[in-house]
Amino acid sequence: MKIFLYGVRPDEAVYLKEWENANPDVEIDYTDKIVTEETVDLAKGYNGVVMLQTQPYTRLALQKLHDFGISKISVRNVGLDGFDFKDLRDFGFSLTSVPVYSPNAIAEHTTSLMLRLLRRVPEFDEKFNNADFRWFPTIGEEINGKTVGIVGTGHIGSVVARLMLAFGAKVVAYDIKPDPYLENLGIYVDSLDEVLKQADIVTLHTPLAKRDIHMIDKAAFAKMKDGVIFINAARGGLVDTDALIEALDSGKVGGAGLDVLESENDVFQKKFDKIEDVKDPQFQALLNRKNVIMTPHTAFYTTTAVHNMVFDSLNDNLKMLNNQTPKFPVDISED
Amino acid sequence: MKIFLYGVRPDEAVYLKEWENANPDVEIDYTDKIVTEETVDLAKGYNGVVMLQTQPYTRLALQKLHDFGISKISVRNVGLDGFDFKDLRDFGFSLTSVPVYSPNAIAEHTTSLMLRLLRRVPEFDEKFNNADFRWFPTIGEEINGKTVGIVGTGHIGSVVARLMLAFGAKVVAYDIKPDPYLENLGIYVDSLDEVLKQADIVTLHTPLAKRDIHMIDKAAFAKMKDGVIFINAARGGLVDTDALIEALDSGKVGGAGLDVLESENDVFQKKFDKIEDVKDPQFQALLNRKNVIMTPHTAFYTTTAVHNMVFDSLNDNLKMLNNQTPKFPVDISED
Repeated sequence: MKIFLYGVRPDEAVYLKEWENANPDVEIDYTDKIVTEETVDLAKGYNGVVMLQTQPYTRLALQKLHDFGISKISVRNVGLDGFDFKDLRDFGFSLTSVPVYSPNAIAEHTTSLMLRLLRRVPEFDEKFNNADFRWFPTIGEEINGKTVGIVGTGHIGSVVARLMLAFGAKVVAYDIKPDPYLENLGIYVDSLDEVLKQADIVTLHTPLAKRDIHMIDKAAFAKMKDGVIFINAARGGLVDTDALIEALDSGKVGGAGLDVLESENDVFQKKFDKIEDVKDPQFQALLNRKNVIMTPHTAFYTTTAVHNMVFDSLNDNLKMLNNQTPKFPVDISED
Repeated sequence: MKIFLYGVRPDEAVYLKEWENANPDVEIDYTDKIVTEETVDLAKGYNGVVMLQTQPYTRLALQKLHDFGISKISVRNVGLDGFDFKDLRDFGFSLTSVPVYSPNAIAEHTTSLMLRLLRRVPEFDEKFNNADFRWFPTIGEEINGKTVGIVGTGHIGSVVARLMLAFGAKVVAYDIKPDPYLENLGIYVDSLDEVLKQADIVTLHTPLAKRDIHMIDKAAFAKMKDGVIFINAARGGLVDTDALIEALDSGKVGGAGLDVLESENDVFQKKFDKIEDVKDPQFQALLNRKNVIMTPHTAFYTTTAVHNMVFDSLNDNLKMLNNQTPKFPVDISED
């Protein structure tokens, strides 16, 4: 069997090698280029393809793959919006994704954002750089004893819940579909509002369903405790960023840890000459606040996550090629 | 009853007020000044005194306290080296301390240092400030799946152990006096060497007994895994700092989180005009490394810890005044 991979970054290559060593009967090759009508020729002669890109997958590129006799596609990530499922159906493709790569990566980053805000790390960093090693008055807070509100208790939120309990926090969680194990721990409350009302720290761990756009808006912030710590390592669109900025200005929100932003596509994963060149007004309004920590959508970015993206996608591609049931098939029967 | 407090910082005053409200029968007053032969007059007319200072408590000051009819002293901290116990015995004093104020404060700070190093926060911070929001190649690691070596499993180390288990780490611990609860979890190994050999992350949580000065020396670093993450939020003297610098230079130590330094008394809790003015060569050799995070002995510094220092010392002082057994009496019968 021969599998070809597109869009491979250098940090992925080490895991490709590892996977190849574990699967000596499979030949793999790869390019750092993404799938286009031109690069698709590289896959000629291979049985399956594994992809990762934010650009759309064009119908013509898919048609060419089909013409090469390829029918098994695996993507190394969650997002599938680059595909027109009709194209996939028309050419008879089967598709797999990697819906979960490392809940711990995101849960640990979430915890880190909380700790950095509670212990006022940006202020201490500034003092340290100014050769001021006095601790007063930059006193910190502990997770222990706080009430942590978790919105969404899926793969990631449930890890966050278990971590927070280990820290000695009281956890109040809400999910439209409670996790039976966590339910035994008695952490669920009846509504999002109840989470917002009780929590000293609010952290979001839901996908971005259409109905959840601006789930956290001006009214939601108003329901929170004064000085609440607010974490979003889920999706930027969940939060009305202007309302967040207003809540920071008023002091309603005492600290914000943001791994995602509504307008991050114009900022994150890009390089500017200097920070003033980032023209996004929301980004600029959040910048240079000692109680805001932004990270450029890196909560997921660990060696474990990248390992799993590579291994799970290749494993599933090989399963399809061997006519076995893949672990993470994608239902493409409807658009 | 009337209690007088010395050396009160503004961040302590709020908890004094809280304690006073909870103990309406007791009158308290305080000064930001420490106990000297001059300031000791402030305590005249009070029944007990509560103190906190790094300067020695002089015999003459203690004698004056005694002459005022005071015999109950409580300190709000652990350290007792400011006292000559003979002075206390000569004047018939009883003494209490606060031996533990918040193990969680230090355990959480320890966790935060690990997470910041594993996720390469100093590098990401620099990239962010340079308007570089690309994540590659600054890939991080997770605590989950790592082997965490804990040296010392007292009040603090045992909290760290439980946290690390919750993160999904394998814990290998060593203590001359194992904790029975943790022993059931099967985390103990037979020697410090075994911890150093197995651990991806080594964290120290022992007091500084004389025999433990430079417990972590050149030979100890040599036993560790290449690229080990090393955390010291215990005592600077536990580590041969020159050996640590050498191990950082060689790459043996992949990252270091240091809340304490051998020579911290010349640096931490002080303010310099600029960082170059810090003349300590070890401090300068550790500075400006992207894989070293130093914090100025702030692991303990949370509102919970300060609350407990105030409450436990006042509670114990009051108990002594009421002829009850204090929670944390100090045995002053021997020097």
